[in-house]
Amino acid sequence: MLLNSPSLPAARAAVQDLGASRIREVANAGIGLEGVLPFWFGEPDQETPAFIREAAKQALDAGDTFYTHNFGIPPLRAAIAGYLSALHRPVDPGRIAVTSSGVSALMLLSQLIINPGDRVVAVTPLWPNLTEIPKILSADVVKVPLQFGKNGGKTWELDVQQLIDALTPGTKAVLINSPNNPTGWVITREQQEVILAHCRRHGIWILADDVYERLVYDGQPGVKSCAPSFLDIAQPEDRLVSANSFSKSWLMTGWRLGWVVAPLPLMADLGKLIEYNTSCAPGFVQRAGIVAIERGEEIIAHTVARYQAARDFLYERLNALPGIATPKPKGAMYLFFRVDGAGDTLSLCKRLVVDAKLGLAPGNAFGPEGEGYVRWCFASSIERLDEGVKRLAAFMEKR
Amino acid sequence: MLLNSPSLPAARAAVQDLGASRIREVANAGIGLEGVLPFWFGEPDQETPAFIREAAKQALDAGDTFYTHNFGIPPLRAAIAGYLSALHRPVDPGRIAVTSSGVSALMLLSQLIINPGDRVVAVTPLWPNLTEIPKILSADVVKVPLQFGKNGGKTWELDVQQLIDALTPGTKAVLINSPNNPTGWVITREQQEVILAHCRRHGIWILADDVYERLVYDGQPGVKSCAPSFLDIAQPEDRLVSANSFSKSWLMTGWRLGWVVAPLPLMADLGKLIEYNTSCAPGFVQRAGIVAIERGEEIIAHTVARYQAARDFLYERLNALPGIATPKPKGAMYLFFRVDGAGDTLSLCKRLVVDAKLGLAPGNAFGPEGEGYVRWCFASSIERLDEGVKRLAAFMEKR
Repeated sequence: MLLNSPSLPAARAAVQDLGASRIREVANAGIGLEGVLPFWFGEPDQETPAFIREAAKQALDAGDTFYTHNFGIPPLRAAIAGYLSALHRPVDPGRIAVTSSGVSALMLLSQLIINPGDRVVAVTPLWPNLTEIPKILSADVVKVPLQFGKNGGKTWELDVQQLIDALTPGTKAVLINSPNNPTGWVITREQQEVILAHCRRHGIWILADDVYERLVYDGQPGVKSCAPSFLDIAQPEDRLVSANSFSKSWLMTGWRLGWVVAPLPLMADLGKLIEYNTSCAPGFVQRAGIVAIERGEEIIAHTVARYQAARDFLYERLNALPGIATPKPKGAMYLFFRVDGAGDTLSLCKRLVVDAKLGLAPGNAFGPEGEGYVRWCFASSIERLDEGVKRLAAFMEKR
Repeated sequence: MLLNSPSLPAARAAVQDLGASRIREVANAGIGLEGVLPFWFGEPDQETPAFIREAAKQALDAGDTFYTHNFGIPPLRAAIAGYLSALHRPVDPGRIAVTSSGVSALMLLSQLIINPGDRVVAVTPLWPNLTEIPKILSADVVKVPLQFGKNGGKTWELDVQQLIDALTPGTKAVLINSPNNPTGWVITREQQEVILAHCRRHGIWILADDVYERLVYDGQPGVKSCAPSFLDIAQPEDRLVSANSFSKSWLMTGWRLGWVVAPLPLMADLGKLIEYNTSCAPGFVQRAGIVAIERGEEIIAHTVARYQAARDFLYERLNALPGIATPKPKGAMYLFFRVDGAGDTLSLCKRLVVDAKLGLAPGNAFGPEGEGYVRWCFASSIERLDEGVKRLAAFMEKR
């Protein structure tokens, strides 16, 4: 390969081998096209609520422009600990570290526990960041795929025994993102208990990506929405680390603010890694995070109701189209549906952009086991979803 | 060690072995003490100028709360490219990536080029982040120390032949921070040319930490302050990567905004790494960065004049104290001075906090070769520096 010739500079091979975003590749195919309806990225269609933005502006006015503690400012750590303690089990603020985004949380946790050559197991299809980060640290990533329609229904299911079989002694960590991007799969309490017991027995780390935990549907009125979490059942000294983010729950994608929950004995080492990765999140961004937690439950309830209606609408409309089979996901904000005869979904999605002005994400962006599927982010208005379905229907009729 | 027992969770050994901040350890010794004068951290004493904060507030008002491109927003990349092209040689905006802080830039560049087991050479004493980041990637870090007072003067000098000798064939990279934290050492053009020629011959990467490049002193009136940079002499395809930051030049430490300059063939791989580290810096922070560059030269000129007066004052006063020998640094914002009979400077600095209410950074925070020295950040008012020197003098009289 030309880039590896000694005369030309190149990135190390492990980085060259990392997957590039196929979603980005599809989006690039639409550059310069007018009127594309984008449902490809995992981002809400609404800006951050004004009261959260105001908190950042006030901190800027107050001159909050200096370094903060590596772990974040104490009132934000306390707010996160209080928030999690109400949702799950009591969590000591000393186990919380504020991070510069949810993905930074995942990178930090990987740096904290993963050595070169370590075996890491991931439940897939999966947001590629989770499978690629351990590879940056020269780990080996083994995939255990969810199965679609296994029990006759149109759902994504985990064969928990298959996962346990893959978690061989000596495995360093298992990566679980539930509610899952892209499938909307939500792990059950029973599955969590089986996995936790097995991981305890073999000293395997559970790395939980919990960023969608508040986005679960069909809940009871007046009860806070929340997916089953390993934080509900684990002890503080278990080999469990949880990554979370302000992005989805509080419509704060662009703020790059997240957090980690880790066992207390690892916090000093985690603090070193934060120093060496971003040192801290901006103080004025952290101030906005406090306000989001303190006054954000109404936002979350409204968002969940809105997304649930969007999910139901899109589910009905897509399943009415011939050749499409879609699950009704219990969580997250995506429909990940099969398109009969789709073949290479990367080409399909590129044609959808160019021919139908419809922006969807190809299933193989989430691993080869996603081939044949397409992801549609339903964090959008019914009107836009309706127009999108019409474009898809017209495209499929012409195929 | 208890933490390594199979029953208790622990970070991986490489992370346990990373240095923890000894500056933080000294600062912790002062917790709860009233009236400590802190000169320990490398942070300006002034908040970010109001016009920069206003730009972020306006972006927040405009709803700029969504993800941006991994490389940063195009107008910021263009502004950085224009800024660097005026200071150094023309730089294509396609070679610029915006990062979530200068330290994130260093982490990304290390991930980009450093494999486990690689040999990396660093010129020291050095800000510990630069020596510890490659260790997170399981590299071996070899140090080449600057020498104090080698030619009879009170200056920090690089023996360039000693560095060249350490850059053996097969070495992956050399880390150079000039102007240097903590010593204020500034590399010369001649030294850069020797190093670049050697690195070209052997395919060794130069990783330049240029965050202090605008903080150089004794320049000509009306001429923009800027240290000699490898960007002045390298070709676009050279194995040179440069990390930079908005923190020091524009008084923006808390914003966590930086950038990278890399060869064009590496940019696609760098983009993947940005996606997997923080994905992007907040859009409203990037908007502030544009304004800083476009309207910030006056800030830089004012800051350099202020720091130069502070340096001159502190230099005169410290050298008048018995048992202290301090250089007059050409750049950065620190005096790194010898204290005769200091012994362990970590203990010395802890005693200074408790007994004299004076916060300084111990030299061994920057590697064992910094032992016997103390770092004083002079980014402060003359009045505060004056009071600090009085406290040091009183402490030393009583020793």
